[in-house]
Amino acid sequence: MNEIFKAPEGDFRGHDQQDVWSQTADPELSEVGPGTVCGEYMRRFWMPVAMTDQIGDLPYRIRILGEDLVLFRETGEGRLGLTHLHCAHRNMSLEFGIIEPGGIRCSYHGWKYGLDGTIKETPCEPVASQVKKKACLGAYPVIEYKGLAFAYMGPRDQQPPFPVMDTFDEDGDEMLPSLIKSPCNWLQVMENAWDPFHVVYLHTLAARVQFHESFAHMPMIEFHEAKFGEFYTNVRRDGDFVWLRIHDHMMPSFTQNGAHFPVPDRERYFGRCGLTRWVVPIDDTHTQVVTWRHFRDGDDPRGLTDKSQVGFGKTDFYGQDPDRPYEMRQRDPGDYDAWVSQGPKNIHSRENLSFTDRGVAKVRRMLRNEIRSVAAGNPVNHPTDDYDGVLPTYAGDTVLRIPAQEGRDDGAVLKEISFAVAGIFKDGDEQPIETRKQYIIDALKAYEASWA
Amino acid sequence: MNEIFKAPEGDFRGHDQQDVWSQTADPELSEVGPGTVCGEYMRRFWMPVAMTDQIGDLPYRIRILGEDLVLFRETGEGRLGLTHLHCAHRNMSLEFGIIEPGGIRCSYHGWKYGLDGTIKETPCEPVASQVKKKACLGAYPVIEYKGLAFAYMGPRDQQPPFPVMDTFDEDGDEMLPSLIKSPCNWLQVMENAWDPFHVVYLHTLAARVQFHESFAHMPMIEFHEAKFGEFYTNVRRDGDFVWLRIHDHMMPSFTQNGAHFPVPDRERYFGRCGLTRWVVPIDDTHTQVVTWRHFRDGDDPRGLTDKSQVGFGKTDFYGQDPDRPYEMRQRDPGDYDAWVSQGPKNIHSRENLSFTDRGVAKVRRMLRNEIRSVAAGNPVNHPTDDYDGVLPTYAGDTVLRIPAQEGRDDGAVLKEISFAVAGIFKDGDEQPIETRKQYIIDALKAYEASWA
Amino acid sequence: MNEIFKAPEGDFRGHDQQDVWSQTADPELSEVGPGTVCGEYMRRFWMPVAMTDQIGDLPYRIRILGEDLVLFRETGEGRLGLTHLHCAHRNMSLEFGIIEPGGIRCSYHGWKYGLDGTIKETPCEPVASQVKKKACLGAYPVIEYKGLAFAYMGPRDQQPPFPVMDTFDEDGDEMLPSLIKSPCNWLQVMENAWDPFHVVYLHTLAARVQFHESFAHMPMIEFHEAKFGEFYTNVRRDGDFVWLRIHDHMMPSFTQNGAHFPVPDRERYFGRCGLTRWVVPIDDTHTQVVTWRHFRDGDDPRGLTDKSQVGFGKTDFYGQDPDRPYEMRQRDPGDYDAWVSQGPKNIHSRENLSFTDRGVAKVRRMLRNEIRSVAAGNPVNHPTDDYDGVLPTYAGDTVLRIPAQEGRDDGAVLKEISFAVAGIFKDGDEQPIETRKQYIIDALKAYEASWA
Repeated sequence: MNEIFKAPEGDFRGHDQQDVWSQTADPELSEVGPGTVCGEYMRRFWMPVAMTDQIGDLPYRIRILGEDLVLFRETGEGRLGLTHLHCAHRNMSLEFGIIEPGGIRCSYHGWKYGLDGTIKETPCEPVASQVKKKACLGAYPVIEYKGLAFAYMGPRDQQPPFPVMDTFDEDGDEMLPSLIKSPCNWLQVMENAWDPFHVVYLHTLAARVQFHESFAHMPMIEFHEAKFGEFYTNVRRDGDFVWLRIHDHMMPSFTQNGAHFPVPDRERYFGRCGLTRWVVPIDDTHTQVVTWRHFRDGDDPRGLTDKSQVGFGKTDFYGQDPDRPYEMRQRDPGDYDAWVSQGPKNIHSRENLSFTDRGVAKVRRMLRNEIRSVAAGNPVNHPTDDYDGVLPTYAGDTVLRIPAQEGRDDGAVLKEISFAVAGIFKDGDEQPIETRKQYIIDALKAYEASWA
Repeated sequence: MNEIFKAPEGDFRGHDQQDVWSQTADPELSEVGPGTVCGEYMRRFWMPVAMTDQIGDLPYRIRILGEDLVLFRETGEGRLGLTHLHCAHRNMSLEFGIIEPGGIRCSYHGWKYGLDGTIKETPCEPVASQVKKKACLGAYPVIEYKGLAFAYMGPRDQQPPFPVMDTFDEDGDEMLPSLIKSPCNWLQVMENAWDPFHVVYLHTLAARVQFHESFAHMPMIEFHEAKFGEFYTNVRRDGDFVWLRIHDHMMPSFTQNGAHFPVPDRERYFGRCGLTRWVVPIDDTHTQVVTWRHFRDGDDPRGLTDKSQVGFGKTDFYGQDPDRPYEMRQRDPGDYDAWVSQGPKNIHSRENLSFTDRGVAKVRRMLRNEIRSVAAGNPVNHPTDDYDGVLPTYAGDTVLRIPAQEGRDDGAVLKEISFAVAGIFKDGDEQPIETRKQYIIDALKAYEASWA
Repeated sequence: MNEIFKAPEGDFRGHDQQDVWSQTADPELSEVGPGTVCGEYMRRFWMPVAMTDQIGDLPYRIRILGEDLVLFRETGEGRLGLTHLHCAHRNMSLEFGIIEPGGIRCSYHGWKYGLDGTIKETPCEPVASQVKKKACLGAYPVIEYKGLAFAYMGPRDQQPPFPVMDTFDEDGDEMLPSLIKSPCNWLQVMENAWDPFHVVYLHTLAARVQFHESFAHMPMIEFHEAKFGEFYTNVRRDGDFVWLRIHDHMMPSFTQNGAHFPVPDRERYFGRCGLTRWVVPIDDTHTQVVTWRHFRDGDDPRGLTDKSQVGFGKTDFYGQDPDRPYEMRQRDPGDYDAWVSQGPKNIHSRENLSFTDRGVAKVRRMLRNEIRSVAAGNPVNHPTDDYDGVLPTYAGDTVLRIPAQEGRDDGAVLKEISFAVAGIFKDGDEQPIETRKQYIIDALKAYEASWA
């Protein structure tokens, strides 16, 4: 009997590590409500707040950055309005409001608001009433494009132009919107996209190959700066091919990544992104991931995409939503399970960041600097400050036939290629938008040929 | 592409109005728990706490003014008892207690309490035990009438007589009780009854005619004082008829209104109320509306009443409960949707009160004065201080044939009629209760004739 | 009408007793999270954390003492591991981890932990990485026995040997584990076992005889000290028989009681316990009762046991779980209803402890002393300090044929017998474990004979 009851040997430190339970999240980076420093910073940008197919003939109640709002399509020209939820008169919710041409009317006493929240009518008030001039309803401008509604919720005098990317309107590219909610803080969802190493385990070695077996190999990652923001090159060798996946980042939470179901078995020059993505805080502990999936001929040689699965609450690649049984989530966890299970607000002080977390550390540093700069009264630098028209971005897959070089360390070769390709992309910024794509393709081919 | 991405023009002030999100409810008027100033004030009155058809042979757990209580019918004479939920011995809930003649017994160790919370037996204690004398259970007196149980939860030395209204026992009037809960603060539910203007939009123009198409016309409202409290006259002209609806208010939350489905197409003299109503706080963010619906021959010429729909959680007029699909509530909102959607506790500092909110402003002012008076140690003035017997009230519909007067502004005419009719009602207070009704009817007819 | 509306007479003190609503629980005795004084004290003991039949081939998430943990069976030798829930790298939950020989691996980036939380592998990190040495995961040692997993969550230098009781491995005794959760603080669940008087009402007189009709008679209770902790003798006379039920207590929350369905109709010498039981805090307001039910020939002459009902979330005696309709719980309340309905955290300041609450008062006093002693830096006295091997315990039923003595007060007789039997049990501690049982039986028989 004694052997059974013998305590196991080992360096058990649960009690020594007890302070993990009293540590808390970093409010500077995680709190997004009105009046918070991070929230004020986030409010300097256009953000997608809803899928427009969710807006019917009734007001649509949403929550963004901790604010309860109502989104509606006025019945005149069909423009979208986005206002504070509660009527400025006596606070009845405008989700019960009456949509009219040019605005929305509260059903309690009939106050009517224009799209900008100006009070248009107060029908039960005396004619001489001045309340229309003294009061107003909080409202935000909305831009609608390809199934998404974007809003700017910051100070009016700091409203930037809408940043239009080169990936928003390309011939042969069908874009389908998607919006999926996660019950956790925005930052941990966003960081997942700055962490190119999690594909090795989470998406490949942990349970099964969720995307492509090449993801089991450790990539070489190099971070680079671009005019629109940051990007990284993610390089792997596959036989004679060097496969570069380029990932765009634009603060605060915009990312574009390569194709979802690529096969690096042939040359590919400046293939473009499979996903354009914003991570949008609903509030401190809820987040929506809003995306356009791009569908182009040739991006999916294995036929794994499924347009019918892209929409509200769903998408066509694995592990992005909660609609799987708990046991399936345990046996085959996905991105959703990774970020949600970090907790309602990830607690940085109990992490042990390492070499592979360079991207995560970098984005937190950048975010903190930007937040403090805005809090100090400085304007945000927008990429649209430098561009009048369409912004050039880089994300996508490029595959070059450059065999391993005898007598040279292949790691050094791949690193050299990373920087050369990044340079070609950056040179493309100087080209007119009409000829830039061909310029990059030609330059990539010439560079590949230089290794022959 | 540029036109699509151009931000809409307008005076968008969502960010300027951001402080709405940090504003909070007024604790002086909204907090009702034990020890709060509003709660102490509310505890000076008899209030309906339950429908008696919900009390079977088991203890009935309820929550009133933030207190968890148990209501039961003792098995001797069938009297109702109302005590604190937790046994005074070791806190087991008396919802699991044993109902006996004259009281309730805790099932844990058998302590038995009388209706007033006195400990009658402690069967497991030694005979010499003094605990029966030292301890007791909190209990409140209960009065039962026409399907409702009323309790007084205040200090014993300030317990007023039960205020009996003239509308509580009239020949030809069938009264059916109803109790409906709302997940919000009591005050916003109560204020709805002080706001005669919301009928124009909410009940008529917003979605459809919920009661009568005449409600689309703006009423003329005059507030008057009565011995029992306040009342207002709500006057509209319909052809040759002048339709006066009189609404009673008695602090803190008693109201009576006119008929629910009236048709002002003939003379009517001193028609009486369709609803007697108390708004009772469950706690700071939950409220029960407790009513008697009155059914009399002639009150409902269109046959819209439905006695079978009046009861626990329901009534026979639209929009008082949550049991409608969300889309129906959006398309055709009712009173419930108005007050619940103001939020768990309406935030007054983000309202813009106007001319039509005179009643709301008035009741808040009266309430604040009364609360502060009680907090300062003053007694409450009850209408029963002046009356030994039945209290005369006024609510109901009166329709007089008084055509528009050539050469006179009709608004001035209606105002004159309002005050004259209010005067007749107030004169009636001086009459013996047996002859008062006929006195008022005769006086109304004589007044009407004076315009012929 | 006046009689109807007359308030009932009585000494109603609900308002006088209003301060019950502002009283709060005693944090010193009820808060168990990391860093609390009670929590630190509880962490000095081995406690059952789970039923092992709940641990399959996936990580099993549990919560103990306010800590979120994952329990798993490594696939090498099948040992159990218990670690903090969140990976020490980036906080992904290890409920999504990969179980391997000797440990568990996080599925996000593949960090592998040994059973003691040591980092074994960080596959995405460079070979030279030192993070394995600098960081670790909190983990606790686990002992597995007869379907239960026990853990020690305290400081390593204060880890006691596992206390093995004489009741854990007896010939002819089948032991089946059970684990049932209650949504309330641990202390009120534990106290129920220190309160031998509740059987009179709750289990017998309140609704029906849940166990045996003899429980309707008030017992004579005497508390005694033993080497392993405390015990009490619970004595009743049934005709010529004196029925002694002995109940063991070991701090902080271990108890053993007599048979569940006994019939005191014949002699019985040192019958043993029907239940070995630990009350384990999940967190401040959730508790699990973890037991072994003992099944021996002769313990249940009426055939009321049902082994198929003993397991996860259930047991074979009435009233221990919530899986009964609310009306059934009201009509026939059980232990679960008693302790859960005291509230999420029982509030001692609104109790009126009396004679029958001596056990409850005693255990609170002992607990407070122990908590303060540990908080002051003292070690806990464990029964294993004095014993190398199996610990002798006493719980069970003894029935002696000792008729009432003419001319003597029977209460005095029963009290004398209580102390004599307690003395025999304590003398047994000095015997070798092999012969102790027979020693006690013989001594009981000799004592019984001395009364003949």
